Amino acid sequence: MAEFLKLVPVQQALDLFLHAIPETHLPLETLESASAIGRVLAEEVVSPEDIPAFPRSTVDGYAVLAESTFGSSETIPAYLKVVGEVKMGTRPNLTIHTGECALVYTGGMLPEGCNAVVMVENTQVSRPGEVEIQKAVSPGENCISIGEDVTKGDVILPSGTVLRPQEIGGLLAVGKIQIKVHARPKIGILSSGDEVISPGDKLSLGKIRDINSAILGSMVELFGGQPVEYGISPDDEQALTQKVTQATSECDAVIITAGSSVSTRDLTSRVIEKMGKPGVLVHGVNIKPGKPTILAVCNGKPLIGLPGNPVSAFVISRLFVKPMVEKLMGVQKIQVEPLVSATIQSNFPSQAGRMDYVPVVLSKDEIGFKAEPIHFKSNLIFSLVHADGLAIISEDSNGLVAGEKVNVLLI
Amino acid sequence: MAEFLKLVPVQQALDLFLHAIPETHLPLETLESASAIGRVLAEEVVSPEDIPAFPRSTVDGYAVLAESTFGSSETIPAYLKVVGEVKMGTRPNLTIHTGECALVYTGGMLPEGCNAVVMVENTQVSRPGEVEIQKAVSPGENCISIGEDVTKGDVILPSGTVLRPQEIGGLLAVGKIQIKVHARPKIGILSSGDEVISPGDKLSLGKIRDINSAILGSMVELFGGQPVEYGISPDDEQALTQKVTQATSECDAVIITAGSSVSTRDLTSRVIEKMGKPGVLVHGVNIKPGKPTILAVCNGKPLIGLPGNPVSAFVISRLFVKPMVEKLMGVQKIQVEPLVSATIQSNFPSQAGRMDYVPVVLSKDEIGFKAEPIHFKSNLIFSLVHADGLAIISEDSNGLVAGEKVNVLLI
Repeated sequence: MAEFLKLVPVQQALDLFLHAIPETHLPLETLESASAIGRVLAEEVVSPEDIPAFPRSTVDGYAVLAESTFGSSETIPAYLKVVGEVKMGTRPNLTIHTGECALVYTGGMLPEGCNAVVMVENTQVSRPGEVEIQKAVSPGENCISIGEDVTKGDVILPSGTVLRPQEIGGLLAVGKIQIKVHARPKIGILSSGDEVISPGDKLSLGKIRDINSAILGSMVELFGGQPVEYGISPDDEQALTQKVTQATSECDAVIITAGSSVSTRDLTSRVIEKMGKPGVLVHGVNIKPGKPTILAVCNGKPLIGLPGNPVSAFVISRLFVKPMVEKLMGVQKIQVEPLVSATIQSNFPSQAGRMDYVPVVLSKDEIGFKAEPIHFKSNLIFSLVHADGLAIISEDSNGLVAGEKVNVLLI
Repeated sequence: MAEFLKLVPVQQALDLFLHAIPETHLPLETLESASAIGRVLAEEVVSPEDIPAFPRSTVDGYAVLAESTFGSSETIPAYLKVVGEVKMGTRPNLTIHTGECALVYTGGMLPEGCNAVVMVENTQVSRPGEVEIQKAVSPGENCISIGEDVTKGDVILPSGTVLRPQEIGGLLAVGKIQIKVHARPKIGILSSGDEVISPGDKLSLGKIRDINSAILGSMVELFGGQPVEYGISPDDEQALTQKVTQATSECDAVIITAGSSVSTRDLTSRVIEKMGKPGVLVHGVNIKPGKPTILAVCNGKPLIGLPGNPVSAFVISRLFVKPMVEKLMGVQKIQVEPLVSATIQSNFPSQAGRMDYVPVVLSKDEIGFKAEPIHFKSNLIFSLVHADGLAIISEDSNGLVAGEKVNVLLI
């Protein structure tokens, strides 16, 4: 019954796993840019035009020849003739000469002849048709010239970009109203264990409800994937093999949560090995919780075997399923992880060489964040319900002493 | 043409605004718990049962009477008779007496009579039907008793909880497969400005594409709301009034992005005032970017007037629209903001009394995060496309000096 795992450090396990997953080959979809939030660009987007397309004012004020304002101040203002007003959204039918100016609003097109704008705050109407300029401007001041933000032909977004609201804005700014994105990867999810029943079924003594399928399903969705549920398999090699084979053929990746005993984890590993080469790459990660994790790639498809404990499954999903889904989707630039620095409020022992992820409650005062470890006995899901994040105790630490700084991954 | 704003500090503006929004009165929806990710509980969830419902082992090992192991060690082990094995998912038909033990797996139900489990690592099969116990256990060790995690009648989740994957797991753990949540609030979004055209329309000189509607729409979606698009209104009081009236009557809140000139912002404010009492609460926030923000509540519905500049609109949306949507949804416990501490890489001037949000690129080395401010001229959306976060320069600062620590809000 003993389990012999060759424990691999977290980063090394992740590198081995991701390296073995082929570059994305998911089908492409064409979407409206405006509704492509969270999707991943499958094309390089080049600007078809200059932005701005016309010289614009960046302030409300008076368009001038900078030379007309030189030397002017509040005490010795320059007096300029107002030759017109630029209506928003129109091309002005005006030319500015020395000694002249025109009223212009933020974003308005600059008239011919001018090369600067004086902010309205630095002017005063002296009499009808004339303004006092109380501050000199230099050529180019308060203006944007054609193509100053984006030049026609610039790559505005590389392929593999995750579309956040601002990227959607960037696409629309250059008139790109449709884009090609990678399909969302289908991630098969199945649970195993003779003791596991569906959450809606009647519980009898000795049984436990499957909560991992729903937790993993919603995590996969947050990561950008499309969860596909395959239900619960008994701890039976033939039944499990059949389900894993089906999931592997229908999906782009498969996650299996094993029962919590050693024998069922061995079963998971044996079944995964049958799915193809190279097979199991890592069986055992030097991490707590989540040590008996299995990472495999079979015929180009990643498969993960997670421990049945829900907290372990959650932590491993956050650390391994997320980058797996991102790699499948073709993400090139990974977003910055929400790592908050906090002061740990009580001692927490660990073991050198092992990474620990400890559920903590965060609070904030003037000085910064405080992290209070949640003490739990059975690693039950409720320790995560109360948690704001996971404090990370790195491999080179024997644990944390109250008052020390710790990085907390928000969850 | 001058604009006279009474600038309100950020936190005070937010407090005034949120305080004036009534408690949620959105209709309730009944959902499957498993697919309720991101929704907000509209009921207090009480556990209908004890968890665990039966005494369980937390390890793979041998169920014993602790007394049978007292004094045992590797050199002087205790020898116990193996009277059976507990199959996963079954109720054991066994009783453990002194001098006896039974094989049990993690999560397995404990037999009658036993009060502890010896980990398999601390045992050795000495001959068929007998194990050596090489380590003493105390009563309760490696066991969870009935209700130790959750007791029947415990409030496991209060009303107003945002459902993350772990909360969904918690609901299913107690067999709660359906729950009541608040409806997603409908947030009307409209743009105004004579220079603004729809992103798919042909651009002519002086015109600019509306990108704010799509940016705000996708942000509202990320915040949990349901965006409803009302298109673009010209800078005409009657047209804008008609659109805002329609949006206000059909939605739970309305966001209007004004054109970028002072006159159109004044127009927005005048139109909002017509929508009911108390009307405009704040017109001008001491923030950069986003100063000319309008916050209003009219007949119980919040309305926000955003500056037309996309970066300003983005920042104000992150700071004011997010908590507004959360309040409308009935969120009680706000999640911890992803604030990363970083070292600023170059000087950045600011003005005391004003909050500044500066787009930055983050990088990470052994020491921690570095934040490089993105210098831009026109506050164009592309400064946010390159940004990982917004460095926050607080009201009591005159700016940042290279090497100083700064909080960065991830975006």
